[in-house]
Amino acid sequence: MIDQTPQSKSPIRETDDGARALGKSLLANARFAALATVEPETGDPLASRIAFGLDADAQPVSLMSRLAFHTKALLSQPRCSLLVGEPGKGDPLAHPRISLQAIALPIVRTSPDHAAIRAHYLKQHPKAALYVDFGDFLFVRFQIRSAYLNGGFGKAYVLEASDLAAG
Amino acid sequence: MIDQTPQSKSPIRETDDGARALGKSLLANARFAALATVEPETGDPLASRIAFGLDADAQPVSLMSRLAFHTKALLSQPRCSLLVGEPGKGDPLAHPRISLQAIALPIVRTSPDHAAIRAHYLKQHPKAALYVDFGDFLFVRFQIRSAYLNGGFGKAYVLEASDLAAG
Repeated sequence: MIDQTPQSKSPIRETDDGARALGKSLLANARFAALATVEPETGDPLASRIAFGLDADAQPVSLMSRLAFHTKALLSQPRCSLLVGEPGKGDPLAHPRISLQAIALPIVRTSPDHAAIRAHYLKQHPKAALYVDFGDFLFVRFQIRSAYLNGGFGKAYVLEASDLAAG
Repeated sequence: MIDQTPQSKSPIRETDDGARALGKSLLANARFAALATVEPETGDPLASRIAFGLDADAQPVSLMSRLAFHTKALLSQPRCSLLVGEPGKGDPLAHPRISLQAIALPIVRTSPDHAAIRAHYLKQHPKAALYVDFGDFLFVRFQIRSAYLNGGFGKAYVLEASDLAAG
């Protein structure tokens, strides 16, 4: 007899230590991400590339130009999503990736956080030293609300922020 | 004397044949994309990975599972965005990419289009033969509304659908 309870039909697996470790590993190794924002004038979604790193507390950060459409969108509507994890060879859908749902928090240049984030980020992105202090660039921290982890076909998980926290 | 007219301050360059060729090349070579959708219940953006190909008329298509969150979002709200173009070595922001603004059009399995799209897609994605005929998978065509092309730092263009059309 086939089990037809709702649980058995859900494509979402129960979160375990392997899923948490995979999610953390994807974030720790990422140097860029796809960002989904909502354009303020139209409400339309926009997918764009951003640089990606972690701060000293393993929270996602990016360095972006205020001239970019996505930065204007984020400053108007901070709810956003980031896709991290790049495919290797073969079917691109067989490779793990994670979609974060997050709130973008701009880092004020005069705040105590700024110097620490700047120093930590430049270790991960040394080439960003060329433009990190340009007037139109700013750091943004992403407060994770939840995440969808896809470890490959049939390996889907819904994670909470605490599943991805440092430690 | 510095020209301070609004035009001179815009980060967007005038579209030329080089920009059109770069945009078409990014689409022709892509096997996956980042998709930005809007979640119907919350209005929040979601970034996720999808497979990516072109149909015989060079229009973007994807094959996706109805079980995925992004498919449910697209079927409810077809306005979406796709990011295409992967970074190589060095600064990820120095590599070209294109953000399409598009409308998702599901391809009905019994439509005349379906067989043609299926055959063309499997040439580009041979491993998808394993699941292309599963009941929960469907083809989606993306009607391009406009595009942002970023050829690397300071090389931004706004393209129209006609700039990316075949020919």
